[in-house]
Amino acid sequence: MNPFTEKHGESVAALGETRLLEKIRLWLGDAAPAEPFGMGDDCAVLPRGKSARLITVDPVIYGGHFNDTMSPRATAQKLLKRNLSDLAAMGGVPIAAVLALTLDRRTSLRWLEGFYRELAACAHHYAVPIVGGDIAEAPQMHLSASLTLLGNPARGGRILTRRGAREGDAIYVTGELGNTLGTGHHYRFTPRLAEGAWLARQRAVHSMIDISDGLAKDLKALETGQQPLSAQIFPGRLPLRRGADLRSAVCGGEDYELIFSLSASARTADFERRWREAFPKTRLTRLGHFTQAGTREAGALNLEDYHGYEHL
Amino acid sequence: MNPFTEKHGESVAALGETRLLEKIRLWLGDAAPAEPFGMGDDCAVLPRGKSARLITVDPVIYGGHFNDTMSPRATAQKLLKRNLSDLAAMGGVPIAAVLALTLDRRTSLRWLEGFYRELAACAHHYAVPIVGGDIAEAPQMHLSASLTLLGNPARGGRILTRRGAREGDAIYVTGELGNTLGTGHHYRFTPRLAEGAWLARQRAVHSMIDISDGLAKDLKALETGQQPLSAQIFPGRLPLRRGADLRSAVCGGEDYELIFSLSASARTADFERRWREAFPKTRLTRLGHFTQAGTREAGALNLEDYHGYEHL
Repeated sequence: MNPFTEKHGESVAALGETRLLEKIRLWLGDAAPAEPFGMGDDCAVLPRGKSARLITVDPVIYGGHFNDTMSPRATAQKLLKRNLSDLAAMGGVPIAAVLALTLDRRTSLRWLEGFYRELAACAHHYAVPIVGGDIAEAPQMHLSASLTLLGNPARGGRILTRRGAREGDAIYVTGELGNTLGTGHHYRFTPRLAEGAWLARQRAVHSMIDISDGLAKDLKALETGQQPLSAQIFPGRLPLRRGADLRSAVCGGEDYELIFSLSASARTADFERRWREAFPKTRLTRLGHFTQAGTREAGALNLEDYHGYEHL
Repeated sequence: MNPFTEKHGESVAALGETRLLEKIRLWLGDAAPAEPFGMGDDCAVLPRGKSARLITVDPVIYGGHFNDTMSPRATAQKLLKRNLSDLAAMGGVPIAAVLALTLDRRTSLRWLEGFYRELAACAHHYAVPIVGGDIAEAPQMHLSASLTLLGNPARGGRILTRRGAREGDAIYVTGELGNTLGTGHHYRFTPRLAEGAWLARQRAVHSMIDISDGLAKDLKALETGQQPLSAQIFPGRLPLRRGADLRSAVCGGEDYELIFSLSASARTADFERRWREAFPKTRLTRLGHFTQAGTREAGALNLEDYHGYEHL
């Protein structure tokens, strides 16, 4: 749906800021907590005893992350869930979010209402109160929403970073890869919060990241940790999503699955059995392992031939 | 300075994302903490024991908050300080910030370098580590930066909201008002962090807000607290900034001064003496007082005749 309208009465400009804020409160419903915890002051106040240790920010921008073919509801889901996926990739659980909206004054109220109502539903589902935000005008048919998400490590879990992989670690990926645009997965996905929290409790898991820019690119981030490594990934093992080919699985991006590395000293069969008990519905695939940097084993993908999504 | 360039080699597109991120690390210097506390992972990790209870977000947008006449350095200062002013208005002290940058690929590196270097200097000055962020591309010569700031109540202070004003409270304002564009005050200002923290320790102070959209509009936010009130403001008392007239002082906005209300049972002379001892260089003006809603005393401004800045 095109988020802009040429009809003044259907645009945000017809309402003005104060009435738009009232509408947004209405659309958000109980996803927006009552004062002093929510909207309406210079800062939002977070509930005591739920202080944050993790923070992440990601936007959706018209013409990039969404366009006229995507509904406002899908756009809202994508915005919240891509931030949740970043939190899952550190083993975190969400606390609260703020939303900064930047919009052309011709933005249609119908689009905005769909967006906020679904944001509220999704925030409710994932227990993420929307505690505040900002609205600012931009020229030239610009529409973007930037969400900042706060979280904490899961109970009993540590904060799992990209930097702990070691030589010999096994490389795993959750779910399936590729064809995320063709299947609508790029907004229909479920962020791997439960899986991320569980993995952060396993001492044998050394490093973790979510796939937003494609396996090839995001895997490289795990190669440049405490010691320089090379990932040996065997193409026949890649769990392809419906309609996906190899290149789309390796380079496509927006998979929002977790890649993690498991200590060489861990028993993979035992680990995989415990995974299946914990997450019977979430596929887990061992793609390969890390070696010293500069190595390439027979049959392993040359990741230099594949590029993930570059933002510029 | 126009932030865009038609010369490919001088634009962010010539670098690509990875090298741009390296540049940004360089430009931020020690304003960006080392991992795991800073940039480079799915989430930033906040230092333990400094967990956040306050969160605020505000952007600067090309064509709105800045334009070709403003330097990238002034733009960076404005971005950080307008968020600090929101924190000051709750009696908070800063902990950390994340920055979401949205930019056309023609954005010039020279502009960006000036922006990030000054952001680093300003972050250093106010002890606000920039712990993470995001970069995303936007079409159509769009350039904006949205900063999310975390904070905590000041030591010994409470969180002071907009909602505590009572009938009979005196109304005070810090500094001077008006002509913020003509004097460059809209980016040269000093956020009232020390004053805000001090005020949050005074039990007789009932409510507080910073002036971003103009005295008339922001004062209205104090009128709609626990009980409906009317502000009686006497125009002769307004502390005018150089070159400011009454309308600019009441409606102009971007003053980033604090308005607060003081209990009717407090002795104003005693309070003002203690203020002068604490802040000999920060002017303090008693503008009037709050009455029951619907009242207008002789000589008081009719605030209905004045409108602050509406964002749409």
